[in-house]
Amino acid sequence: MTVTKQSHLFTKTRREAPADETAKNAQLLIRGGFVHKEMAGVYDLLPLGVRVLNKINGIIREEMNAVGGQEVHLSALQNPETWKTTNRWDDEVVDNWFKTELKAGGMLGLGFTHEEPLTELMKNHISSYRDLPRAVYQIQTKFRNELRAKSGIMRGREFLMKDMYSFSSNEAEHLAFYEKAKEAYFNVFRRVGLGETTYLTFASGGSFSKFSHEFQTVTEAGEDTIYISKENKIAINKEVFTDEVKKDLGLGDDFIEAKAVEVGNIFTLATKFSDALGLTYKDETGEVKPVFMGSYGIGPTRLIGTIVETLADDKGIVWPKSVAPYDVHLVVIGSEKPDVATHAEKIAADLSVQGFDVLLDDRDARTGEKLGDADLIGIPMRVVISEKTMAEGKLEAKARTADAASFMTFDEVVEALKS
Amino acid sequence: MTVTKQSHLFTKTRREAPADETAKNAQLLIRGGFVHKEMAGVYDLLPLGVRVLNKINGIIREEMNAVGGQEVHLSALQNPETWKTTNRWDDEVVDNWFKTELKAGGMLGLGFTHEEPLTELMKNHISSYRDLPRAVYQIQTKFRNELRAKSGIMRGREFLMKDMYSFSSNEAEHLAFYEKAKEAYFNVFRRVGLGETTYLTFASGGSFSKFSHEFQTVTEAGEDTIYISKENKIAINKEVFTDEVKKDLGLGDDFIEAKAVEVGNIFTLATKFSDALGLTYKDETGEVKPVFMGSYGIGPTRLIGTIVETLADDKGIVWPKSVAPYDVHLVVIGSEKPDVATHAEKIAADLSVQGFDVLLDDRDARTGEKLGDADLIGIPMRVVISEKTMAEGKLEAKARTADAASFMTFDEVVEALKS
Repeated sequence: MTVTKQSHLFTKTRREAPADETAKNAQLLIRGGFVHKEMAGVYDLLPLGVRVLNKINGIIREEMNAVGGQEVHLSALQNPETWKTTNRWDDEVVDNWFKTELKAGGMLGLGFTHEEPLTELMKNHISSYRDLPRAVYQIQTKFRNELRAKSGIMRGREFLMKDMYSFSSNEAEHLAFYEKAKEAYFNVFRRVGLGETTYLTFASGGSFSKFSHEFQTVTEAGEDTIYISKENKIAINKEVFTDEVKKDLGLGDDFIEAKAVEVGNIFTLATKFSDALGLTYKDETGEVKPVFMGSYGIGPTRLIGTIVETLADDKGIVWPKSVAPYDVHLVVIGSEKPDVATHAEKIAADLSVQGFDVLLDDRDARTGEKLGDADLIGIPMRVVISEKTMAEGKLEAKARTADAASFMTFDEVVEALKS
Repeated sequence: MTVTKQSHLFTKTRREAPADETAKNAQLLIRGGFVHKEMAGVYDLLPLGVRVLNKINGIIREEMNAVGGQEVHLSALQNPETWKTTNRWDDEVVDNWFKTELKAGGMLGLGFTHEEPLTELMKNHISSYRDLPRAVYQIQTKFRNELRAKSGIMRGREFLMKDMYSFSSNEAEHLAFYEKAKEAYFNVFRRVGLGETTYLTFASGGSFSKFSHEFQTVTEAGEDTIYISKENKIAINKEVFTDEVKKDLGLGDDFIEAKAVEVGNIFTLATKFSDALGLTYKDETGEVKPVFMGSYGIGPTRLIGTIVETLADDKGIVWPKSVAPYDVHLVVIGSEKPDVATHAEKIAADLSVQGFDVLLDDRDARTGEKLGDADLIGIPMRVVISEKTMAEGKLEAKARTADAASFMTFDEVVEALKS
């Protein structure tokens, strides 16, 4: 595994976020050196942020592959002709297109989603019932021309999205996949540390179906309002919170109102796109039928923001182990002393051999600054090495969420990291 | 490692590429199911293409990390103010911008490169000589509004680029890094199978320096003309092929003219961007100085195209082992027979345990079609399983570039795959 020396890491922590940044998630991520703000709703990922994103994307890929998802990467540039078939090219219909002029002539769009181009593409690959079902996903940059963007990396004008689309013979086959995808989504949120606070939420199905399913994580920073049923672990989005819907879902009247952020959304698309674009297949009897579709979105960058919003404390970020940029933050006190520095590098190398990624704070900086930065950056385990710990023959370990540190042997630290 | 059943892979091979596709690389990649053409210069990557790209990106990352590169991911959306400082916002100066209107007001660009925003970003992180040198890279989508795009995935309007930027105290420190980066580039081209045909090429330095260094791969599909010195393994781009330059470089007059494609380009930027954007540092004496910069580009998607152009034969693509989507293509003849199918799945699983990625052709298709597809897709080793091979107690293996197959034991196949 990796050992990164903090003296080599190019990013520096900051005491203050930029004055124009009002979202807590972006403030902490900027201060910790995870992201850089280019403009409202547009953020760059710095090395620590790239590491967190890779962990999140890894979890998402595992779960999508487990339900048979096949990964692709579609273009951002969009051909208007494809979108005109569903009437979604028109700015009156879709109000957040970024459009741009092609020098060779004509306009192009920047994809805010990919139902149309993928449905078109699949016409080359689906012709028979034997080609179904299929699930295709990507982790790709989306562009949305939002009028306002004040939620940090939770609502970007440019952001990463994992969007999966399913292609089935009929509604029954679709629903079987849809249930598997729902479970995969629960797995993702549980694995990234949001399992306890994320609710399957009934929301408007738009023009596609009666309901869509959102996954809403409770946080004051959320832009949505949901009503959580006290009986079941499900919720209803305010937009459809009516007596009729409560009755439809067999729920009583005992709800908790909460602000929440939509971290995922799964939709039955039925044959809306396959009808418009002509994606059909021949069934066992030779009859030509439209393919029955679904769509499944998660925003990996939004997940990063949501994790920060919901788990951070007043000292900084608190990463769950599964998505932390490093497993252990090895903080050297007295790194200017050769024997301490040498010992620290040996411990870092030994931890790496044991399978852990180590951020080694070997900087020439004050102790308070180093410990403050460790809290801000939020790696789950901090291990201090100093002349004092060397004299004890131990290491001083502290979980990010613990109140106090304790002296441990190397083996005890390894055990704690594994648990 | 992975076993993918071809009956599950959603892409199908095609006999013919689209009529409007004239580039050999895109024709073969489309026919094999690696890419899909959205429009001229804009291609989607399909599962096989994603796998090849991941291999190439993995090699590039290893080499960039080895020279101390730190990975980031900058936004595509660009703020005009940053680009006005260097006068590169103006369409008269840069003729391939895609620009788009922000609904909240103002224009944005789509990044065709990232010197300006990264230089601006680094002002937060570089202030002292102790913060230098640094190297920062990303693998990120670039947009270029090309008037013509007829070279398949070798010249896209939207394409992936690995762009690295270096930040040094002075020219000497810069040149030391520049030489390391040059070696890293040679390593990348060697590892992806283009070592023999790629030449370090002296080219125009533009407004930055006397020369830049291009890495040019010889292919008839290239848009550049280079002159390869017979004495040394270096070349001169036609644009600067003058007697003066030949003399400057100490080369005689013995050159071979060749068409070539620029697969990489490294530049000394000096202080052009740091002066314009105010990226400075304090040296040991407290004096404020501009940071000395370099830039280093490789196009991963262009590399895919170049590998196809230079290595394909008349039967299809020929992937080098290092970038092949799978290590072995296990083709089952008679997959409708349960004992053959079971045996094939066991062999696939056994190969996977041995550390190889396997594409298992379990489709219900004619033998000729399966073997033709294996040649088209171009996995380095094809292994046929049939009743005949089972009766022999062996496997029928054939390297993609070999003329004939031979019967081998499982262990011999493993040996061949490892060699």
